[in-house]
Amino acid sequence: MRFAFFGDIVGKTGRRALEAHLPDLRQRLALDFVVVNAENAAAGFGVTEKICEGLFDLGVDALTLGNHAWDQRETLTYIDREPRLLRPANFPAGSTPGKGANLIEAANGSRVLVVNLMGALFMETLDDPFSTIERELAAAPMGQVADAIIIDFHAEATSEKMGMGVFCDGRASLVVGTHTHVPTADARILPGGTAYQTDAGMCGDYDSVIGMDKEEPLRRFTTRMRTGRFEPATGEATVCGVFVETDDATGLALRCEPIRIGGQLSGQIPQS
Amino acid sequence: MRFAFFGDIVGKTGRRALEAHLPDLRQRLALDFVVVNAENAAAGFGVTEKICEGLFDLGVDALTLGNHAWDQRETLTYIDREPRLLRPANFPAGSTPGKGANLIEAANGSRVLVVNLMGALFMETLDDPFSTIERELAAAPMGQVADAIIIDFHAEATSEKMGMGVFCDGRASLVVGTHTHVPTADARILPGGTAYQTDAGMCGDYDSVIGMDKEEPLRRFTTRMRTGRFEPATGEATVCGVFVETDDATGLALRCEPIRIGGQLSGQIPQS
Amino acid sequence: MRFAFFGDIVGKTGRRALEAHLPDLRQRLALDFVVVNAENAAAGFGVTEKICEGLFDLGVDALTLGNHAWDQRETLTYIDREPRLLRPANFPAGSTPGKGANLIEAANGSRVLVVNLMGALFMETLDDPFSTIERELAAAPMGQVADAIIIDFHAEATSEKMGMGVFCDGRASLVVGTHTHVPTADARILPGGTAYQTDAGMCGDYDSVIGMDKEEPLRRFTTRMRTGRFEPATGEATVCGVFVETDDATGLALRCEPIRIGGQLSGQIPQS
Amino acid sequence: MRFAFFGDIVGKTGRRALEAHLPDLRQRLALDFVVVNAENAAAGFGVTEKICEGLFDLGVDALTLGNHAWDQRETLTYIDREPRLLRPANFPAGSTPGKGANLIEAANGSRVLVVNLMGALFMETLDDPFSTIERELAAAPMGQVADAIIIDFHAEATSEKMGMGVFCDGRASLVVGTHTHVPTADARILPGGTAYQTDAGMCGDYDSVIGMDKEEPLRRFTTRMRTGRFEPATGEATVCGVFVETDDATGLALRCEPIRIGGQLSGQIPQS
Ligand SMILES: [Fe+2]
Ligand SMILES: [Fe+2]
Ligand SMILES: [Fe+2]
Ligand SMILES: [Fe+2]
Ligand SMILES: [Fe+2]
Ligand SMILES: [Fe+2]
Ligand SMILES: [Fe+2]
Ligand SMILES: [Fe+2]
Repeated sequence: MRFAFFGDIVGKTGRRALEAHLPDLRQRLALDFVVVNAENAAAGFGVTEKICEGLFDLGVDALTLGNHAWDQRETLTYIDREPRLLRPANFPAGSTPGKGANLIEAANGSRVLVVNLMGALFMETLDDPFSTIERELAAAPMGQVADAIIIDFHAEATSEKMGMGVFCDGRASLVVGTHTHVPTADARILPGGTAYQTDAGMCGDYDSVIGMDKEEPLRRFTTRMRTGRFEPATGEATVCGVFVETDDATGLALRCEPIRIGGQLSGQIPQS
Repeated sequence: MRFAFFGDIVGKTGRRALEAHLPDLRQRLALDFVVVNAENAAAGFGVTEKICEGLFDLGVDALTLGNHAWDQRETLTYIDREPRLLRPANFPAGSTPGKGANLIEAANGSRVLVVNLMGALFMETLDDPFSTIERELAAAPMGQVADAIIIDFHAEATSEKMGMGVFCDGRASLVVGTHTHVPTADARILPGGTAYQTDAGMCGDYDSVIGMDKEEPLRRFTTRMRTGRFEPATGEATVCGVFVETDDATGLALRCEPIRIGGQLSGQIPQS
Repeated sequence: MRFAFFGDIVGKTGRRALEAHLPDLRQRLALDFVVVNAENAAAGFGVTEKICEGLFDLGVDALTLGNHAWDQRETLTYIDREPRLLRPANFPAGSTPGKGANLIEAANGSRVLVVNLMGALFMETLDDPFSTIERELAAAPMGQVADAIIIDFHAEATSEKMGMGVFCDGRASLVVGTHTHVPTADARILPGGTAYQTDAGMCGDYDSVIGMDKEEPLRRFTTRMRTGRFEPATGEATVCGVFVETDDATGLALRCEPIRIGGQLSGQIPQS
Repeated sequence: MRFAFFGDIVGKTGRRALEAHLPDLRQRLALDFVVVNAENAAAGFGVTEKICEGLFDLGVDALTLGNHAWDQRETLTYIDREPRLLRPANFPAGSTPGKGANLIEAANGSRVLVVNLMGALFMETLDDPFSTIERELAAAPMGQVADAIIIDFHAEATSEKMGMGVFCDGRASLVVGTHTHVPTADARILPGGTAYQTDAGMCGDYDSVIGMDKEEPLRRFTTRMRTGRFEPATGEATVCGVFVETDDATGLALRCEPIRIGGQLSGQIPQS
């Protein structure tokens, strides 16, 4: 099958860019499945039911989140009604609304396990991501329960992200990072057959500080005072993501290529 | 002028790859100046006099370091004898050997200010990088004292790195990140004319965890015990860096393009 | 001279407790000077002009702050009009309102240098506290410019706090920590003559989580979601601080004893 | 029953002090049970079989550890042979040698559940301490399976430690912190009947930086270079701990008082 993953949508400019480019991409790349990280879609902070529905209408099959999962209070209840919206799987079991992993049917009938996971290094405390993913992979083994497995590892440190790639290699279709809002140039297929890119990059305006208007971040870096508010930058966004083609029998990757369209970054579109 | 910056050399495989490709690159891209981050050149931990001399012989004009600056004790004295070897400028003034910035003459006679700087987020405590770079830029303004300014910002967080790019925009030729060991796909020229890439990536084997053999990092991630030693991976390295061409009068960037040669990553060489 | 330092006032219960006990303490211990950390006095978050004035009217001679310095916007301007209100001295020079150190006259005519300083470990990034205090101590040497020197080191890690005590030993009358909101049982005079206590403790309700009503902190620890608001606990506060008597000629400490009055903790009042 | 807990033994001076004072304390306070944190007993780094045996011979009933658990390689195998030596319970299940909690018989026949747990804030990543302790308390409820429960919470942040006290209040005999190496002056019985002290303090020389000779820590704080080695300070140690008397039927606390004997700190011994 053929799928794409797009990194953190930051604000309205990110949503507009995805709206502008996804229908064409879906067709051109013959995508069977699309996953998008939406943790910053609502003016940079979390996501709303309305925004999620807009994204599903656009042809997105699953949405993931991250440390901004609960920035909008409505997510606390909405996520229990919407199985296609996932929050990191390593939030404490029992007390956390929603799910961290779900088996979702693709347009072509394939069952895709989508997992959202948060890193431990330099992030707020959750359960250990490595034992969590071990459990999720055991519950829906690829080639048996799942036809493909897409893991969004929302994490800061490159060491932990490469470690997660290595840990899941051969057991997932794609391990892709989010959270840093900068795409990495290391898309590749790991030795065991898992597609990997350290960070998908954001769908946001790169003439910014990780998608936010430059003024307030600069003020904080130079004054060390948190006196203003962060606002998403409003220039044209770059749509950033990864395209993966998998072997239908094994779920392992045959192709793994970056996608970058529009805005400040150099463009990159996989050959159809 | 035309120059290149290459990210953290990790161990012998990184050094071998640079030896194999730099002479050809220097000629093909007509480089006037080359800077390399060498903080992991000595088996992953710091650098030695012998390794530095080998790199200078290879045609490297300046070397930068980072949090691994002092891993080899000989660096504490060698750096005072070698003005082309720089350590982060925001180590405490007075007590720290070596310099954090230096004006170095290029092959074409240009005076290039090279600055090494360490980030504050998720890193060990040093002086504030923003006030430090402000001071360095004031001491050798571009277009007056310096013909070009190259800033290696050794930092973890993409927010701080993009913030540093914005802060120096129009006042430096290049702000490039190091330390994460993964190249980012965001090479560009900022609005004020400064070339920018969030991370240069390492010169190391990417079939690894940030250049280190996978076994020990995986053991630490899964057991949370530090019982073994890190060893550099030994597969073929990818040489990762950035190529920049500047306006001789202003020092601002005319071109900014990524370089990736060999090993696991997709290749990318700027047009001559 | 004889002075007392009291740790972070947390909310109204902390203010009430200080109001109830300070007049009596001032008389009983024959205090010439009183310093209080007020970073949490305004419902847990920063301080207001009105609260500061109430504290000065109560007989407090100087107020210090910490990471909550700017929680109330009015502090940004008020601090420039009120020389007895200090914020951490290692905020960036130039851009930060107010002062981090000031020479304040005591009731008995002594000139007391009060310094507020923030730690680097596990705290937000400021300038290095050790080089900052070195500069402040050089500017107003004890026994020459200052008759006594009181340093409020607002920091998390005990290693950094003991390190600061050792670093200033013989050059200050008192190095006392704040920020952890728990008094330490290690009041003593260091070998060089500087009084020292790792943390003064808070003036707040200890039937709480560091002064805050238990419910929301517990929710965050168990759910890892930041969905509620912190409110100060409202039970009776314990007034926590340190009493120091110094040699008038040298400024060095002759006595250093803990103060704890009221609320949940065991009481401790120095002999007059 | 009556028991005592003593904080991190730092090096030989800490061991000598405990040897000098524990036999007398055991008798004077009629102790039925003694727990000691030994994570720094072997020259500051971990513990050895020989040191553990010496401590058991001295009358210690259980030993706990912390982030230094594995500093001595022999602990990896010794801990599987010695059920009285515990490491933090929130190390990953399955891969970690030893146990994090154990039911140990006291001299008077009582069954005491001793739990060692590591904090999440500002510490290395382990499993969540709150869900871990929930599981341990459920497995051996106080008043049913266990006659008393002693929890050593090895953690940095006072907020997390007070949070753990609140979380376990009414379900454990004692929640006491270790790791900061400074005793807190907040020994008390929480509303639900659990004895609590934020940190027990170390058994070590306080004329130091958290038990280590002052020279190297000071060098690191002022130069920010890790060029030397940490060595335990060698002056007379203060034995620091907590004395608790419990109700035999419920396991809840009747008394909770600090212990400090010898060395630099003011002395404090509970009345017999
Ligand atoms: Fe994000
Ligand atoms: Fe994020
Ligand atoms: Fe590096
Ligand atoms: Fe580094
Ligand atoms: Fe505070
Ligand atoms: Fe604070
Ligand atoms: Fe310790
Ligand atoms: Fe520890």
